[in-house]
Amino acid sequence: MTALAPSPGPDTSGPVFHAHEGGKLESVPTKPLNNRDDLSLLYTPGVADVCRAIAQDPSLAHRYTTRKNTVAVVTDGSAVLGLGNIGPVAALPVMEGKAVLFKQFGGVDSVPVCLETGDVDELVEAIARIAPTYGGINLEDISAPRCFEIERRLQQRLDIPVFHDDQHGTAIVVLAALMNAAKVVDRALEGLRVVISGAGAAGVAIAALLRRSGVHDVVVCDSRGIIEPGQEQLADHKRRLAATTNPRGLRGGIGDALRGADVFVGVSGGTVAEELIATMAPESIVLALANPDPEVHPDVAARHAAVVATGRSDFPNQINNVLAFPGLFRGALDSGAAAITETMKMAAATAIARLVEHPTAQEIVPSVFDPRVAPAVARAVADRA
Amino acid sequence: MTALAPSPGPDTSGPVFHAHEGGKLESVPTKPLNNRDDLSLLYTPGVADVCRAIAQDPSLAHRYTTRKNTVAVVTDGSAVLGLGNIGPVAALPVMEGKAVLFKQFGGVDSVPVCLETGDVDELVEAIARIAPTYGGINLEDISAPRCFEIERRLQQRLDIPVFHDDQHGTAIVVLAALMNAAKVVDRALEGLRVVISGAGAAGVAIAALLRRSGVHDVVVCDSRGIIEPGQEQLADHKRRLAATTNPRGLRGGIGDALRGADVFVGVSGGTVAEELIATMAPESIVLALANPDPEVHPDVAARHAAVVATGRSDFPNQINNVLAFPGLFRGALDSGAAAITETMKMAAATAIARLVEHPTAQEIVPSVFDPRVAPAVARAVADRA
Repeated sequence: MTALAPSPGPDTSGPVFHAHEGGKLESVPTKPLNNRDDLSLLYTPGVADVCRAIAQDPSLAHRYTTRKNTVAVVTDGSAVLGLGNIGPVAALPVMEGKAVLFKQFGGVDSVPVCLETGDVDELVEAIARIAPTYGGINLEDISAPRCFEIERRLQQRLDIPVFHDDQHGTAIVVLAALMNAAKVVDRALEGLRVVISGAGAAGVAIAALLRRSGVHDVVVCDSRGIIEPGQEQLADHKRRLAATTNPRGLRGGIGDALRGADVFVGVSGGTVAEELIATMAPESIVLALANPDPEVHPDVAARHAAVVATGRSDFPNQINNVLAFPGLFRGALDSGAAAITETMKMAAATAIARLVEHPTAQEIVPSVFDPRVAPAVARAVADRA
Repeated sequence: MTALAPSPGPDTSGPVFHAHEGGKLESVPTKPLNNRDDLSLLYTPGVADVCRAIAQDPSLAHRYTTRKNTVAVVTDGSAVLGLGNIGPVAALPVMEGKAVLFKQFGGVDSVPVCLETGDVDELVEAIARIAPTYGGINLEDISAPRCFEIERRLQQRLDIPVFHDDQHGTAIVVLAALMNAAKVVDRALEGLRVVISGAGAAGVAIAALLRRSGVHDVVVCDSRGIIEPGQEQLADHKRRLAATTNPRGLRGGIGDALRGADVFVGVSGGTVAEELIATMAPESIVLALANPDPEVHPDVAARHAAVVATGRSDFPNQINNVLAFPGLFRGALDSGAAAITETMKMAAATAIARLVEHPTAQEIVPSVFDPRVAPAVARAVADRA
């Protein structure tokens, strides 16, 4: 017998793996514990007084526990980045990264919770059962259409904000970007004809938030083309899209949708040919958000469009959820909000957009490192809570 | 109508509440995130490489995530300290305190998880579903007899240590204390006649670990007296106790058990009269561990016993679980143990006991602030993993 060569493991050389060594978070005491006196204050017997007080008046938990400032970043690993269903453990690096961003940008303590994948009932039950620990639930990278029902049922059941960031975080930043892009091309947001490519978590939420913001003409496409009521075998969430979008009753492919459109929003991971971008209306706006490969290369899109944005940090106009979620939860926690409403999302988008005083084609959103962003979003959200 | 005076809320003045203000833990990034380069390493797009590698080889999660060093401190708030079933939110201060101790003494990152109370099936299901996030599960303050089945079923299902500290942490420290107390009175541990008052989580685990360590004559009492097979309507865990303890077939009350006994271990929260302590054998050992009120005051016990210990910090010989759990999990995590075995628990107890070179009546266990404790326990546990 010939010995088989051992199968090579993943290549873990390079700066990315070095940066992740040991994980990216730690759980750190905020109070000194150096002697028996400290121990008897922070733990037994002292802690019993705090427990007893909270049992008597549960609202005291906001003052004397971590609950008020702690958000769970919850996933089942079923739709991680563009990697698909890689499971809970492989999703952990993303959840840790998210928790790092929560703390760094919003001062929000956040802990990953990676769940063994299950059906909707099982996930809702597990998340609801651990919810007393947290001041908010950030759902992350849970596949559509399960994400819609999970979020809806949890928010009905819990009195803390439940927020699926892949939906609403994306929608908020897209709305902010379009508010300023509309200014650049001197148009009213409401009058823009918008085509969204992708009817997953992000596409559904963007369509809903744009319509809520007064954008009348939104057309959503998936891999089968324009979503419209005549299509057969539409999933529930696409049936709802068909009923609420596409006011001109378009049919056909993405090419039919894009002809004469003002805005393309790509959240599909697919590609769109230059020829189709060329058929859009003059002074069009292209947000090609697939990561790491935009639906159309920004340099190509710029030959035809007046404003171009991507999800990438190495081109202008990076559309990144980190502009929204840290400040959003900061504001929701500070105000004790029981949910994140549509009004709060629109206020967040407006706050982000307003930080760019004079929008240009090269700057429709602030930098993710602009320190004004999270506080401005938090204030706007808390005001609407 | 006369206005009713508002009912006074809990008194939250004083140093205990001040020490708990804002909670006692935060979730802190361990890697710098100051610019776009950092962001693209720690989050998208870089993080995708780490996720992909872990999906390909799950063992890499130990190196590149927080999983390896993170323990969930899980409760449903059903048996918190001496306060009973106060629910998950009111239990949070204790779980935070536990997490502080894990980090401070064992360098273990630890996060509270407070679950809405449910039946055994529901709790097992919820805890198993979140388990991929953690390197170990520390169950805390879950009422007996539910705690026994929850721990057993979780450990069967998971490949990480599941450890109910109220059971085994207490048992380990009691065993360590008795090892050294036996030396003080110049007796062999195995030959001691031991009476345990309390057949809850701690009592059951102490009885099991003492028997495993060769102590033949263990008698357990609950509020109905000596647990023995002739009793009617015994709960399952007490039926198992009846079958495995009380080798001389004693019957009656705690007084009948204590007459001529060498050791009293109180984990009941009840009281034991001085007259009964007086009937114990000469050179007896009294561990009165109820907190904050020992079953018998240590000064009273010392009139009759050669060695006296309590759970309190203001008397000699404080029997405190913090001597065990930080080092125990440190060793289990470092060695990648899939469970905490009886052998590991006995090794932990031996390591704690050995740190007292010359045990005396005033010193049978090391101080909880002795910096040698956790490393010694960790080494002993890892060696047996």
